[in-house]
Amino acid sequence: MEHVTVFGAGSWGTALAIVLAENGHNTLLWTHRQDQANEINDQHTNKKYLPETNLPELLTATSDMKQAVNHASIYVMAVPTKAIREVCGNVVNHLSEKALFIHVSKGIEPDSLLRISEILEQSLPSDLVQDIVVLSGPSHAEEVVLHHPTTITAACKNIKSAEKTQDLFMNGYFRVYTNTDVIGVEIGGALKNVIALAAGISDGLGYGDNAKAALITRGLAEISRVGVKMGGNPFTFSGLSGMGDLIVTCTSVHSRNWRAGNMLGKGMKLHEVLEKMGMVVEGVRTTKAAYQLSTKYEVPMPLTAALYDVLFNEKVPKDAVDELMIRMKKREIDNLI
Amino acid sequence: MEHVTVFGAGSWGTALAIVLAENGHNTLLWTHRQDQANEINDQHTNKKYLPETNLPELLTATSDMKQAVNHASIYVMAVPTKAIREVCGNVVNHLSEKALFIHVSKGIEPDSLLRISEILEQSLPSDLVQDIVVLSGPSHAEEVVLHHPTTITAACKNIKSAEKTQDLFMNGYFRVYTNTDVIGVEIGGALKNVIALAAGISDGLGYGDNAKAALITRGLAEISRVGVKMGGNPFTFSGLSGMGDLIVTCTSVHSRNWRAGNMLGKGMKLHEVLEKMGMVVEGVRTTKAAYQLSTKYEVPMPLTAALYDVLFNEKVPKDAVDELMIRMKKREIDNLI
Repeated sequence: MEHVTVFGAGSWGTALAIVLAENGHNTLLWTHRQDQANEINDQHTNKKYLPETNLPELLTATSDMKQAVNHASIYVMAVPTKAIREVCGNVVNHLSEKALFIHVSKGIEPDSLLRISEILEQSLPSDLVQDIVVLSGPSHAEEVVLHHPTTITAACKNIKSAEKTQDLFMNGYFRVYTNTDVIGVEIGGALKNVIALAAGISDGLGYGDNAKAALITRGLAEISRVGVKMGGNPFTFSGLSGMGDLIVTCTSVHSRNWRAGNMLGKGMKLHEVLEKMGMVVEGVRTTKAAYQLSTKYEVPMPLTAALYDVLFNEKVPKDAVDELMIRMKKREIDNLI
Repeated sequence: MEHVTVFGAGSWGTALAIVLAENGHNTLLWTHRQDQANEINDQHTNKKYLPETNLPELLTATSDMKQAVNHASIYVMAVPTKAIREVCGNVVNHLSEKALFIHVSKGIEPDSLLRISEILEQSLPSDLVQDIVVLSGPSHAEEVVLHHPTTITAACKNIKSAEKTQDLFMNGYFRVYTNTDVIGVEIGGALKNVIALAAGISDGLGYGDNAKAALITRGLAEISRVGVKMGGNPFTFSGLSGMGDLIVTCTSVHSRNWRAGNMLGKGMKLHEVLEKMGMVVEGVRTTKAAYQLSTKYEVPMPLTAALYDVLFNEKVPKDAVDELMIRMKKREIDNLI
């Protein structure tokens, strides 16, 4: 039995806290909202994020950062990508011994082009970090809390910490694979949101399964290309955090990015979509970052470029698809463009 | 403009004949049924297979094998896997000059474990075969005839013949990539039906998108493992004929194998499912072949083995899934089992 603190009580942080509690670990959930902590402690629910789930009674919550930090030396970072630097700063204020950081965020910081683990490295003093692990894969929170079979990858340069994470989370419905390729896992998890937007656009245009499968396949090819240039292992992109997460994001009704793309495909403008969604559409930020990565690493990413034009240069979605289809004839492997 | 004969007027043969005719090629469709040839020539429809499609008036059909063979020296073989040997035998009776054979079938012959191009090689005299090309990818006929964007791979050891095939078919809605890895393309196309059955079972059991993405991802990993052992290029399995076709087959309402699996997951017995479907479920035959390949090449294929037990040894589907989830802890790449 371990002590673990999960930072962030959104749907994914809460679902992971439930898995940990069900596995017998003494788990504390930190949220910045006192009323949400009260609801979790008193009602054993988190209605805003998992409306139909009863939380284990042993799972408790706090909004007290000091208590959250002192509770454990294993931290699961499940706050929104944008909030990571701020939360890390607050954790550091109370941190006195080495801790293991497991993060579950997906994104690339625009302009700096940093991956999440790099942001964590920048934000935390190295003498207080045992290791940084990324946990990523095809895993909708709504299904995990129903105990539907789910698989996921835990990656860390130090395989021992990946295995420690595997031991913490693995059970009969939650199967964890280990990997040492942090770059590949983070890039796959981040860039899939670009393709999910594109898949939504395709569906919004009324195209079918052939077109969507093409987008997913050729999308993964360009993600792999840039990811390998950045130092990732090509096989990681065919794994759970790459292909697996990409599939679930592009074909599932739960996906926010797909829904945003779908509205774009139906003719709405980006600002109208964002107003209507009323929440972060990570793929929009990530498309910008992916476009910048493509330039920085000099890797052709035709789908990303087309989506960038749709989002930021008012290109008509149907024109973008038509242009992708009639590009120069290509070999599938020798010249993966 | 080329002369082309398409053998087999099912939905896929007919859709490909339409693409060829729309591209300006003089295209003849062969079917063994005289009434079907008459319908195509007189009504310009093929209601049994593509009920809502009007065929181009320039597309003609015949049930005369001699006329079909003499029409062209490019043949598209789109007959059911089981009929290939017989149709080839009849073609050979009339063949007098070298021809290019493009096949679009997916399967592995049980017991002999031959791929389709190997069956063609066995059935045709080598001095009359210019090359054998396989055309495969995520391509439901129903969507191709609607001109929905579709991508596909043409593979041949001789890249010139793959490029010739690309030139024949490619247009604004049908994008063809070339590849020289015939083995990888054929193995991916055949074995995806095994995973489609498994995905149907998962959906039939009421599991969600996480489970299905896991099956697809880990399924492709074991297809790649055995395919590479047979001589395929690992990257082919991440391409259109591998991952692309696998996704479309596992997530589309059009897939016969998925529907059969779905009924199994809901508790029906295999013989009940096959009676109810009333047509070939290729994945059942292929599961047997895949199981034999796993033994022959000594490659562990846990999903295939579990499905084999469900189909042929009356294993309860839910027990099979549970056992897969609680197997030994694994690394994702180093030990792809």
